[in-house]
Amino acid sequence: MSTLCVPAHVPSVAEDCEQLHKAFTGWGTNEGLIISILGHRNAAQRKLIRQVYAETYGEDLLKALDKELTNDFERIVLLWTLDPSERDAYLTNEATKRWTSSNKVLMEIACTRSPKELLLAREAYHARFKRSLEEDVAYHTHGDFRKLLVPLVSSYRYGGDDVNLTLAKSEAKLLHEKISKKAYNDDDLIRILATRSKAQINATLNQYKNEFGNDINKNLKADPKDEFLAILRGTIKCLVCPEKYFEKAIRLAINRQGTDEGALTRVVATQAEVDMKIIKDEYQKRNSVPLDRAIAKDTTGDYEKMLLALIGQEEA
Amino acid sequence: MSTLCVPAHVPSVAEDCEQLHKAFTGWGTNEGLIISILGHRNAAQRKLIRQVYAETYGEDLLKALDKELTNDFERIVLLWTLDPSERDAYLTNEATKRWTSSNKVLMEIACTRSPKELLLAREAYHARFKRSLEEDVAYHTHGDFRKLLVPLVSSYRYGGDDVNLTLAKSEAKLLHEKISKKAYNDDDLIRILATRSKAQINATLNQYKNEFGNDINKNLKADPKDEFLAILRGTIKCLVCPEKYFEKAIRLAINRQGTDEGALTRVVATQAEVDMKIIKDEYQKRNSVPLDRAIAKDTTGDYEKMLLALIGQEEA
Repeated sequence: MSTLCVPAHVPSVAEDCEQLHKAFTGWGTNEGLIISILGHRNAAQRKLIRQVYAETYGEDLLKALDKELTNDFERIVLLWTLDPSERDAYLTNEATKRWTSSNKVLMEIACTRSPKELLLAREAYHARFKRSLEEDVAYHTHGDFRKLLVPLVSSYRYGGDDVNLTLAKSEAKLLHEKISKKAYNDDDLIRILATRSKAQINATLNQYKNEFGNDINKNLKADPKDEFLAILRGTIKCLVCPEKYFEKAIRLAINRQGTDEGALTRVVATQAEVDMKIIKDEYQKRNSVPLDRAIAKDTTGDYEKMLLALIGQEEA
Repeated sequence: MSTLCVPAHVPSVAEDCEQLHKAFTGWGTNEGLIISILGHRNAAQRKLIRQVYAETYGEDLLKALDKELTNDFERIVLLWTLDPSERDAYLTNEATKRWTSSNKVLMEIACTRSPKELLLAREAYHARFKRSLEEDVAYHTHGDFRKLLVPLVSSYRYGGDDVNLTLAKSEAKLLHEKISKKAYNDDDLIRILATRSKAQINATLNQYKNEFGNDINKNLKADPKDEFLAILRGTIKCLVCPEKYFEKAIRLAINRQGTDEGALTRVVATQAEVDMKIIKDEYQKRNSVPLDRAIAKDTTGDYEKMLLALIGQEEA
């Protein structure tokens, strides 16, 4: 569920564009006006605003924003303004170029999006970068990470609820065997995680717990510093309980020396219109602090205001 | 270019359905009538016929055909009547279930279809089998074949003409290195074939030829009996010159003790509306015999008539 607050009476697109244009011109930039418009429009409305803005002022709205804004505020406004599939294409491209074994963005996008959304992101990637997502991932990653990430980003999983329980049992056993032998990069282990439907994987992991007494992610913690194990645990979390994965991503971004604005911005910009309500609940349950209070404590200025607008804090 | 002949004045869909229904009822089946209708309607028209037939007679046309027809004639009429993406889903599913190392159908469909067509086939696969294509391929194949086939069927290649020549040079060199070391299952070799756009692969293989003097497929013939090498050569052929691949598939199906109806039917049913004109020209050039004469010599009855209708032989 979305945390975005769209007003009951939305001004016309032309009016929104005019106001945005006004916010850019004259002395200084009117950040508050930008937040009050873009922070309260849904994806379809933002798309239309971008289109009409370009027609009216002969400039891409993103370019105008890029010129006017800076730092974390700029990044969240730009990411947010992008169409979801374009945004995913942008984030995955950035992740291939900055790839390190601790970078989980590719896995996160491949596993938390619906099969159809991932496909749309791959289409947007073609359009923007004139290459395929999987080709860039395969080119920039290596070894076990490549072995896992390429099929994850290439997957077009079955999206239905049908589950084969016999298969779930046999694959739970197979996973347990491989993990017991520490064969974490095993072909079949990766095949199961990268190709089975989310419903099927969920059934398999339930069988795993019933049969072997432990959550699979407990058994994948042999070495807490091993980055490949960490990405395997992340994969499983993103596939079966994305809201918990995102809660933790936000928690880690906030609870550290110096906020990790990159992660915070990415999660808020990509989830505000998806599951942010559930993520907020998870956050409060896990940290005994409401997410908006935690964000307000850790961030400042227009960046803070935009984050709070997107996670649905009522305006005073 | 298609070889399908659709008459200038096509009867109404209702009329086509009525005629087909008539062909099924009464004494015996009127195969000639079935060929004269279905053998001369394009994909959109056949789809509409199937829809109206089901509405009018309360039975799927494919079921009715299945009851009335037999053997090779049945198979070509059924395959042909299917929507192209449904047909590809059906053929790939069959290939996963009957998979052997000499079965090239998965590779053929993954590499000769356009990126968008392959995607539509994967969607049709979800709808029909409640699983994903890549999940079944990964489950039913093993070792090096799995390592190649899963990324091939999962690919959503960039479809444009943009080519990076620097990359083509460096990857041609990389391919040559790996092949010289007989590292045919090398990660990078498979990555290049499974993820790069067809235009990029074509440029890379031209560089390969310029730089190293041989067609890459010559260098992949170290052991002519090695099935993995054969599928690698097939992959390259399907990606850069599908019409030559199909010409050879038909040639091998015809020029043997007992025709390989399975291959002949598949190529004609899947290519009649795509590249069959070019494949026919290739065939004549390579065998000094027109394809229709070769088919007429090797097949009989209604099966022969349907094949000839689809490859565009003028009716007397």
